[in-house]
Amino acid sequence: MQLKRPYLLFLGDVPDALAAKTAIGIVDWRKDWCVGQMRLPGCKADTGLPDMELQQARKAGAQTFVIGVVNAGGVLPGHWLDSVVAALDAGMDVASGLHLRLEDIPEIAEAAQRNGRALHNVRQSSQKFTTGQGTKRQGMRLLTVGTDCSVGKKYTALALEQGMRDAGLDAHFRATGQTGVFISGRGVSIDAVVADFISGAAEWVSPDTDADVWQVVEGQGSLFHPSFAGVTLGLLHGSQPDAFVVCHETTRTHMRNVEQPLPSIQDVIDLTIRCGKLTNPDIRCVGIAVNTQALDAETATRTVDEIALAHGLPAVDPIRHGVAAIVTRLKQEFDL
Amino acid sequence: MQLKRPYLLFLGDVPDALAAKTAIGIVDWRKDWCVGQMRLPGCKADTGLPDMELQQARKAGAQTFVIGVVNAGGVLPGHWLDSVVAALDAGMDVASGLHLRLEDIPEIAEAAQRNGRALHNVRQSSQKFTTGQGTKRQGMRLLTVGTDCSVGKKYTALALEQGMRDAGLDAHFRATGQTGVFISGRGVSIDAVVADFISGAAEWVSPDTDADVWQVVEGQGSLFHPSFAGVTLGLLHGSQPDAFVVCHETTRTHMRNVEQPLPSIQDVIDLTIRCGKLTNPDIRCVGIAVNTQALDAETATRTVDEIALAHGLPAVDPIRHGVAAIVTRLKQEFDL
Repeated sequence: MQLKRPYLLFLGDVPDALAAKTAIGIVDWRKDWCVGQMRLPGCKADTGLPDMELQQARKAGAQTFVIGVVNAGGVLPGHWLDSVVAALDAGMDVASGLHLRLEDIPEIAEAAQRNGRALHNVRQSSQKFTTGQGTKRQGMRLLTVGTDCSVGKKYTALALEQGMRDAGLDAHFRATGQTGVFISGRGVSIDAVVADFISGAAEWVSPDTDADVWQVVEGQGSLFHPSFAGVTLGLLHGSQPDAFVVCHETTRTHMRNVEQPLPSIQDVIDLTIRCGKLTNPDIRCVGIAVNTQALDAETATRTVDEIALAHGLPAVDPIRHGVAAIVTRLKQEFDL
Repeated sequence: MQLKRPYLLFLGDVPDALAAKTAIGIVDWRKDWCVGQMRLPGCKADTGLPDMELQQARKAGAQTFVIGVVNAGGVLPGHWLDSVVAALDAGMDVASGLHLRLEDIPEIAEAAQRNGRALHNVRQSSQKFTTGQGTKRQGMRLLTVGTDCSVGKKYTALALEQGMRDAGLDAHFRATGQTGVFISGRGVSIDAVVADFISGAAEWVSPDTDADVWQVVEGQGSLFHPSFAGVTLGLLHGSQPDAFVVCHETTRTHMRNVEQPLPSIQDVIDLTIRCGKLTNPDIRCVGIAVNTQALDAETATRTVDEIALAHGLPAVDPIRHGVAAIVTRLKQEFDL
């Protein structure tokens, strides 16, 4: 999946900012890929981009109309349909993060065909993968892993990409979830792939590169999450990381949506190394990214300092402290 | 997926026994579920069941016409189509282990609709699963795991079901692959499930039962196989086994179809316990099933004895020695 840029972000008439978190995430990380936003009357979300109509967006160069919202049920509200069809008629591709398949809506399928435009369903995968091979590929890879789901693995990977570039490295974010795909313009929602092809999809998303390129792969789930650990392990094997960063949220007491307790950071480091060695014997941990959103500044600083000391690794909240300490450690470890 | 019994096994005109291994596997384990076989001129495979035409099979009670073969490309040869349509017209459901979807062939879809019969694509999953919950369910579960793919996990699980029944236990084989689904009449090809739902599918296949029921779950892949370990881990978490048996083939030097070396049996025991504890803290290994097909009888016996001694566990070749030693250990471990 490869999305043409720039984007026009469509927010429909969603009732709050949370429903537009995909669009807001795109603007956070790729504002220069977006010409503007398009909202319907009553919309309660705002990405801060200029509001535009379709023709105005086309004149500004928009190539893809991005439905950057989530909604209950994942369906396309009937009163959004005209906007989608009009975007296709105006000459844009359409990319959706909804659960539905755009081509299953006859009016959209016909408009795409009529205009020769592409439809992208970012939550789904029509791509055919092969099974993973486990063979060492050229280039360097860093994977973010987590003590749990939804602890900041995507944010950390994007912050590391930026921090590594700032430090002179040739770093490239590799998306494995839907918001990440919009942010990178390509990638795969790896949890939507058929189980046999998880590691194969992870190999596809982080292919052979020049020797000095770092691919920063967005992690998914947790090896300790009973719902999603299979995805996490396939992604670990397929992405064969040289380095990994553990992401952790300080206030969780049990895994998201299930009753299992949270593993320790050390548990995650140990099991990631043990399993990751299968496809990269030199795998090592280079830092810990701590989501301290729930803590005041002083407690946050004390918490990351304690975690750093306990593990002998740099620990930072990427939002509060930046990731420079982790990038420095990475450069030391790999003589960069 | 729930297949009606008994079956009529359709072999088409396959060129050798290997191409009919699904049908032969069904006869090996569930001969009494089959009324006969149906072959086309030139067929070189034989399950040993009586040859029957459709009307004869219907009179003998056949409910499902099983396409129990594999062929290059997984497509339905054009000259088999008449037989499939005629089976539907004769009042049978049709179940296929081919890669295609039966309903994608218009003549078959129409015949199924005309006769009100079901089409089952055993390699695929149209079933909707939920994500795994990781909550402890009632009843007891045993999972077969492997040092590699294709080392006898299905055979061992079926032999254990039989051996446990012979020892007075209420044991039930649970299928996670296509031949297993035909043999058990229900189940799921777990490697065909969307990645997000691996452990959820494993929970579905081994649900709550009475406290003294043992569900014997067919394992898949290996935690050490870089292509399929994600499936293996999701199956381990979802099936939450109380007991597991390690399956091993003595002549392998590296994992099937990839370059990774074979893990040791102890590696597999250790990592299975470490990961399996997430959903069942009391998980334990009760034996080792060794595929000694490549060895002479004396070497085979010496090999399993050495493996048993080294691990302090019963070790048998299920085909050569039976599984009684493992069942005895299971009964000791769980006071049965």
